[in-house]
Amino acid sequence: MKRKICFPITSRAYYGRSQLLIRKLHAHPGVDLKLMLGGSILLDKYSRHIADDIAAGGFDIEASLFNVIEGGNHVAMAKTACLTALEFTNSLFTASPDVVVICGDRFEQLAIAMAAAYLNISIAHIEGGDVTGSIDESVRHAITKLAHLHFVTNADAHRRVLAMGEDPQYVFHAGSLDVELAAHVRTTITSEQVNALGVGHDIDVERPYLMVVQHPVTTEADNRAHLETTLKVVSSFDLPTIWFWPNPDAGTGEMADMLRHMRERHPELTAHMRFITNVPAADFVALLAHASCLVGNSSAGIKECSYLGTPVVNIGNRQQGRLAGPHVTHSSYDAEDLGAAIATQLAHGRYPASDLYHRPNTSDVIAETLASSRLYTQKRFYE
Amino acid sequence: MKRKICFPITSRAYYGRSQLLIRKLHAHPGVDLKLMLGGSILLDKYSRHIADDIAAGGFDIEASLFNVIEGGNHVAMAKTACLTALEFTNSLFTASPDVVVICGDRFEQLAIAMAAAYLNISIAHIEGGDVTGSIDESVRHAITKLAHLHFVTNADAHRRVLAMGEDPQYVFHAGSLDVELAAHVRTTITSEQVNALGVGHDIDVERPYLMVVQHPVTTEADNRAHLETTLKVVSSFDLPTIWFWPNPDAGTGEMADMLRHMRERHPELTAHMRFITNVPAADFVALLAHASCLVGNSSAGIKECSYLGTPVVNIGNRQQGRLAGPHVTHSSYDAEDLGAAIATQLAHGRYPASDLYHRPNTSDVIAETLASSRLYTQKRFYE
Amino acid sequence: MKRKICFPITSRAYYGRSQLLIRKLHAHPGVDLKLMLGGSILLDKYSRHIADDIAAGGFDIEASLFNVIEGGNHVAMAKTACLTALEFTNSLFTASPDVVVICGDRFEQLAIAMAAAYLNISIAHIEGGDVTGSIDESVRHAITKLAHLHFVTNADAHRRVLAMGEDPQYVFHAGSLDVELAAHVRTTITSEQVNALGVGHDIDVERPYLMVVQHPVTTEADNRAHLETTLKVVSSFDLPTIWFWPNPDAGTGEMADMLRHMRERHPELTAHMRFITNVPAADFVALLAHASCLVGNSSAGIKECSYLGTPVVNIGNRQQGRLAGPHVTHSSYDAEDLGAAIATQLAHGRYPASDLYHRPNTSDVIAETLASSRLYTQKRFYE
Amino acid sequence: MKRKICFPITSRAYYGRSQLLIRKLHAHPGVDLKLMLGGSILLDKYSRHIADDIAAGGFDIEASLFNVIEGGNHVAMAKTACLTALEFTNSLFTASPDVVVICGDRFEQLAIAMAAAYLNISIAHIEGGDVTGSIDESVRHAITKLAHLHFVTNADAHRRVLAMGEDPQYVFHAGSLDVELAAHVRTTITSEQVNALGVGHDIDVERPYLMVVQHPVTTEADNRAHLETTLKVVSSFDLPTIWFWPNPDAGTGEMADMLRHMRERHPELTAHMRFITNVPAADFVALLAHASCLVGNSSAGIKECSYLGTPVVNIGNRQQGRLAGPHVTHSSYDAEDLGAAIATQLAHGRYPASDLYHRPNTSDVIAETLASSRLYTQKRFYE
Repeated sequence: MKRKICFPITSRAYYGRSQLLIRKLHAHPGVDLKLMLGGSILLDKYSRHIADDIAAGGFDIEASLFNVIEGGNHVAMAKTACLTALEFTNSLFTASPDVVVICGDRFEQLAIAMAAAYLNISIAHIEGGDVTGSIDESVRHAITKLAHLHFVTNADAHRRVLAMGEDPQYVFHAGSLDVELAAHVRTTITSEQVNALGVGHDIDVERPYLMVVQHPVTTEADNRAHLETTLKVVSSFDLPTIWFWPNPDAGTGEMADMLRHMRERHPELTAHMRFITNVPAADFVALLAHASCLVGNSSAGIKECSYLGTPVVNIGNRQQGRLAGPHVTHSSYDAEDLGAAIATQLAHGRYPASDLYHRPNTSDVIAETLASSRLYTQKRFYE
Repeated sequence: MKRKICFPITSRAYYGRSQLLIRKLHAHPGVDLKLMLGGSILLDKYSRHIADDIAAGGFDIEASLFNVIEGGNHVAMAKTACLTALEFTNSLFTASPDVVVICGDRFEQLAIAMAAAYLNISIAHIEGGDVTGSIDESVRHAITKLAHLHFVTNADAHRRVLAMGEDPQYVFHAGSLDVELAAHVRTTITSEQVNALGVGHDIDVERPYLMVVQHPVTTEADNRAHLETTLKVVSSFDLPTIWFWPNPDAGTGEMADMLRHMRERHPELTAHMRFITNVPAADFVALLAHASCLVGNSSAGIKECSYLGTPVVNIGNRQQGRLAGPHVTHSSYDAEDLGAAIATQLAHGRYPASDLYHRPNTSDVIAETLASSRLYTQKRFYE
Repeated sequence: MKRKICFPITSRAYYGRSQLLIRKLHAHPGVDLKLMLGGSILLDKYSRHIADDIAAGGFDIEASLFNVIEGGNHVAMAKTACLTALEFTNSLFTASPDVVVICGDRFEQLAIAMAAAYLNISIAHIEGGDVTGSIDESVRHAITKLAHLHFVTNADAHRRVLAMGEDPQYVFHAGSLDVELAAHVRTTITSEQVNALGVGHDIDVERPYLMVVQHPVTTEADNRAHLETTLKVVSSFDLPTIWFWPNPDAGTGEMADMLRHMRERHPELTAHMRFITNVPAADFVALLAHASCLVGNSSAGIKECSYLGTPVVNIGNRQQGRLAGPHVTHSSYDAEDLGAAIATQLAHGRYPASDLYHRPNTSDVIAETLASSRLYTQKRFYE
Repeated sequence: MKRKICFPITSRAYYGRSQLLIRKLHAHPGVDLKLMLGGSILLDKYSRHIADDIAAGGFDIEASLFNVIEGGNHVAMAKTACLTALEFTNSLFTASPDVVVICGDRFEQLAIAMAAAYLNISIAHIEGGDVTGSIDESVRHAITKLAHLHFVTNADAHRRVLAMGEDPQYVFHAGSLDVELAAHVRTTITSEQVNALGVGHDIDVERPYLMVVQHPVTTEADNRAHLETTLKVVSSFDLPTIWFWPNPDAGTGEMADMLRHMRERHPELTAHMRFITNVPAADFVALLAHASCLVGNSSAGIKECSYLGTPVVNIGNRQQGRLAGPHVTHSSYDAEDLGAAIATQLAHGRYPASDLYHRPNTSDVIAETLASSRLYTQKRFYE
C-alpha cells in the first residue's frame, strides 16, 4: 500500500520553496500525496492565482480551509493559528495519513504540528535547527520537539537538532529546498513581466536595481517606524527599486498602511519604486539573481543569495543568529547605519557562490526518505 | 506596579499539585494573580466542587472556559486543545499579563503556551525536562522550547533543559510541587471519609489496601485491554482496593466503559473495590502514604511515593524513562508479569524516604522567582 | 446530473425518525445522498453503535465531526452549536450540495441551517410550524425563516408556516416521519432484548409497565428537582418501569447526577426500574406500543402515542402548545398533580388510534419532493 | 439593581446609526450598558478610528473580539459568523446581561442572537419586519423569531412581525434610528474635510456631485460585473463622484479588486472620482443631503434619503421589496437602464421630505423600553 503523505501549504513562500519536493512526491510510485491548503495561500491579496495553479497541477487537494483572521496583530495571529489547528485536525483525522510534512517556522505550522501530534501521526519537519529572531525562533524548535523526521539545511542546524535530544538516525542533512530551487530554475525575467505585476513605476531589469523584502518582526513593536526608515534610506539612493509587500504576520497592517500612505501622500519618496505583492518562485529567484543588492530581513537574503552571490543588507533581528555567508552585511534599524551598509554593498558588487546551504538533490533525498523511512510515533529523548 | 501573573488551571491534578504555589502567589505583595479555569476542572464528573472551592478561596478568576470536546479519543483531544488555545487567546489578550504559568505536560497546556507565545507574553514552565512515554513526552519538550523561565524538579531534567538550548540563568532546580505538598500535608484520612466518596465496597483504611491509578496512554491503542488485565490481576489478590477513575485523555471512554461493564456484569471481580473519581490533593497523599502498594501508571508513583516510601508497581510505557527510585518496580502489560510485581512489592513493604524529587521550599522559590525575575520575550538558542 | 442532498444527523432521535426517509433518498436514482454526522450521534454514551450501524448501511458519510462540548449547561450548549456551525460550514462548502435537510428543532440544527444559508444552499426543513416550550420553540421558527422547502406534520403547523410569510407552493403537509415509522415497524420486543440493555432491574414486557422519558427543559432552572419529583411519584406506583436517560441538552448533567445518586443511595426508590440510554427506533416504538402509560415530556408522547393509542402523562412546559390528542393528560411538576394524572391514565387504559400526525407515505412524499422540486435561494416574504 | 444591557457592535454602519441610542442608554440611570466590539468595527481598513472613538466615549467595553475571517466569499462569511457566535457566547456568558440588543440584519447579528438565545438572555431586535433581497432577508426574519422585544421602523414591518406570531405588546413602532440621526445632525461638511479622506480626485462639495454606495449582494454571483457596469455608467456622466468602498460581505474581494484595477489601469474612467472607505455617520448624512443623486443599493437610499429628499437610483435586488418613497427610482443591472435612471433623477432634482421611516424620539422610545419593559425568555407563538 502506498504511503499517504499530507502536505499542508499555508503561504506562497512555502509553496514556492517546496515545489520541487511536491512534484517529486506526486510522481513517486510509493506515495499518495495529499495537499492541504490554508492560511494566506487561499487569499487573493497575498497569493493571487497560486491556489489555482496548484489545483491545475493535477495534485490531490484534500482540503481548502479559510482560516486567516483579520487584524494583522498578535491576537489575530494567535487566533489564526488556533483556528488553523482546529480545522486541520478534522482534515488530518479524515485523511489519516502516515506522515504530515511541516515546513519551516511559520506560526500556523506549529499549530498544525500540534494537531498532528495529538492525532498520533508521524511528523516530518523541514528546516529545523536554524536560529533566528522573531517568534519563528521559538516556533521552529517547538516543532522539532514534536517531529519524528528532521531535514536540516546546514551543519549548524544539524548540531542543534541533535543537542535537543533527537535521534541521529532520523536527522538528515539534506540542504535547503530554496537554494536547490535557486540553483535549478532558469534565472531570467523581462522588464515587461515585472511591470505587469503590482503597482508603481516601471522597472528596467537590464539596469541596476535594488530589491526590498522587509517582513514584520512579531516580537517587536516598531515595525512601522522601522519600515519607514528603510523606505526613506532606500529612496535616497535614487535607484529603481522592486519592493515586495510584507507577509501577513502580526504587524503587517501598520506596515502596509505606511506604504499606502507614502504612495498617496509622498509620491516623491516612491518615485523609483514598484510595489509587488508576489511573484512565482522562479521569477523571484531571477529578480534576486540580478539585483544589485537585497535589502530587508527575508531568509532569502541569507539562503538563496548565498548561492546566487547577491549582496545583501540584512536589517534588524528577524534573522538574528542564522548562519550567514560573507555576502551578508548586517545593519541596525538606524538610518545612518542602514545607508552605510547599502552603500558598502553597492560598492562591493556580487560575491562568489557558496554551498553553505546547498546540497545537490535536496528534494530527491527528502522525497525518498519520506517514502521509505521507518515511521514511529512514540518519541524518546536521545542522550 | 504589581507583576500580573496568569495561571491557567485545566485539570484537578494540576490544581492539587499547585495549591501551595497558588496561595503564595495570591499572598505575594508584588503579584497580581489571575486564575484562568478551563478543561476538565470545570466539569462535574471529573472535578466536582473543585472549581467551586477555587472560587471560594478568594482568588481572582479571570475566565472560566468550557472547552472539553466529548469523544475521549484522539480527535476530540486534539480539538479540545485547539479550542482551548482559541479561547485562552482572547482571555490572555484581555488580561495582558506579564507572565503566564504553564504546568507540566498535559496536551492543553502546550496549546495555551502556544497562544501565549504568539501574544508575546513571557512563559514560565514548571516540570520541564523529564522524560516519559505517551504524547506527554513530546508536549513537555515543545513547551520548554516556547518557555522563558524553567522550574525543573530533578537533576536529570535540569541537564536536559540546558541541552535543549535554554539559557542557564533562567533554569531553576526547584524540586517537585507534588512532593513538597506530600511532605507538607498531614497524612491522615478516615475510612468514613473514603467511603463517602465514589461507589463500590467500603474500605477500612486501618487495614492493608491497594491503590490503582491507571490513565490512558494516548500513543497506544490497547488501553481497554490493558486496564482489564490490571483489574483481573488486582482482583486476584483479594485485597481491599481503592481504584481511581482514569483521567479524560484520549482512550478514557473505552477504559471507563470497561470498568462500568465489569461492575455491572462481573461484580465478583470488583467485590473488594471502591471506585473514586477524585479526592482533594491532601487526601490523595494520605491514601498514598498508607497504601500497601500503588499500581498503575501515575506520575504520583514515581514522584510522591519516592518521598513517602510507598511501594509502586509502574505499568507500561506512560512513565517510560522518568527518573525513578528503588521503590518502583516496572511491569509490562502482561498479567503474569504484573501479578509477580505486585506480589514482590507486597512482600517487600515500605521503602525509606528519598529526596530524588524533593527540595525544601519549592513553592517559595517558584513564587519569588515569578515575582521578581527579569522577564524577556525574544528567545535565543544558548550554546 | 443527480441532485446532491446533504443530510446532517446530530442525535439518535433524528436518525431513528429519519431512517425511512434516508433509505428512500439513498435508493432514489435521481439523488446523491451524503450523510454528515455530528453531535451526540458520534458519542458512545448516547448512541452506542448507531454511527457504526449507519456506516454499515452503505451510505456515503461525507463527514464525522466531533463537536459536543462538555458541560451539560447553557454555555456548553451554545458553544456546541457554534462549533457545529463552524465545522459544518467547511463540510458543506466542500460537499457543495443542492439541498441540505434540517430536521426539527434541536439547537445544533439551527446552527447548521445558518451555515447553509450563508453558503447559499437551499434548505429543506422537516417538522416546522409546531409550537412547544423550551428553546426549541424559538429554534424551530427561526429555521423556518431560513428554509426554502417546508414539510409540516399537521394542519396547525401548516397554517403557522404560511402565516410567517412562507410561499404556499413550497409548504408540504406530509405528516410525521415518527408516526409513519410507528405505523410501519413490527411492534414486538422480548423481555430478553430489553434486559440486555442498560442497567437496573429486569423487566417482564408481557406484564404492565410504565415508561419514563423526561428531557431537560433548557429555558428552566429546576430540571433536577423536577426529575426527582417524577422519580419519587413513579416509584410510588410499584410498577416495573423502563426509564430512558435524558438527552444531552443543557441541564442533562444535573439530571443524570440525580439519577446516579438515587441508584447508589436510595436503591429502594429504583427497585423496579431499568435505566436505558437508548434503543433502536423500532424497539422504542415496540416499547411505547405496550406501555401502560408514558410519563415525561418527550414529543413521542404527543406524536407516536397518538397513533399507537398509548396513554400519556405529559409533564411541564416542554411540549407546551403542541397539538395533542385525547390520549394526553397534562400535568404540572407538582407531585400530587403528577400522581393523580398517572393514576387516571392507568385507570383509563389504551385509546383509539388517531391520524392527527399521520399521513400515509410521508417519507415517499418528502423524498420525491426533495429530488424534484424546483430549488431557489433568494427568499421573499409571501403576503 | 440596574438593568444590564449588552450592545454588540460589529460594523461601522451599526455604530453610526446607533449612536444616539447608545448615548441615551449610557446616560440612563437605570441601565448598566456594556458595549461588545467585534467584526469589522475593529479593523483599520473598514473602520479606522471608530473603535478608538468608542473607547474614548467613556463607555464600558466588555469585549473586543477579532473574528473576521479573510476571504470575502461565502465560506469566509459563514465562518466569520460561527466564530463570532462562539466568542460572543463566552463574553455574554461572563457578562450575564438582562438584555442583548441585536440591530438589523447583518449575518453576524443572527449568530450573536443565536448565542444569546441559547444562553436564555432576552433579545431586543431593532429594524425587524422589513423585506429586502440578499441573505439579509432570511437573517432579519430569523432574528425576529429568536427575539423578545421588537422595534420596527415602519407600518409594513409592524404588520409582518405580528403576522410571524410575535406578541403585539412587545412590538414597538419606534421609527428608524438612521432617519432620526439624519433629522438630528447638522448637515454640513466642507470640501477640505472630504478631500482629507480616502484617495482619488478632489471634490468640491459646493457643486453638484454624485454618490455611489454599492455593496455585495451575497445571494448573487456577478457582483464584480455589476459594479463594473455602475462604474462605467457613472463615469459617463462626467460629474464629480464620491464613491464609498463596498462593505465586507461575501463578494467584497472581487468588487474591491475591480475598483483597484480600474484606478490603476483605466484612470480615465475614475478621473472625477474620490474613493472613501468610511466617514463618521454625521458626515455621511451631510454628504447624502447635498448629493445630486445617490446611486447603488444602500438602505440609506431608501431610508435616510426619504427624509432628506435626495434622489436615489436603487440598483438590483439588494433592497428588493423594501418600502420606498417616490424619491427612489429602481434600476436593473443593465447599463442602459441604469444610465436612463440616473439621467431622470438628475433632471428631476430634490424631492419633498417624507415621514415614511421617521418618528420623533426614536432613540428615547427604544432606550426607555429597554430600560423598563418586562422581560421574559420562553417565547410563545401568538395567534
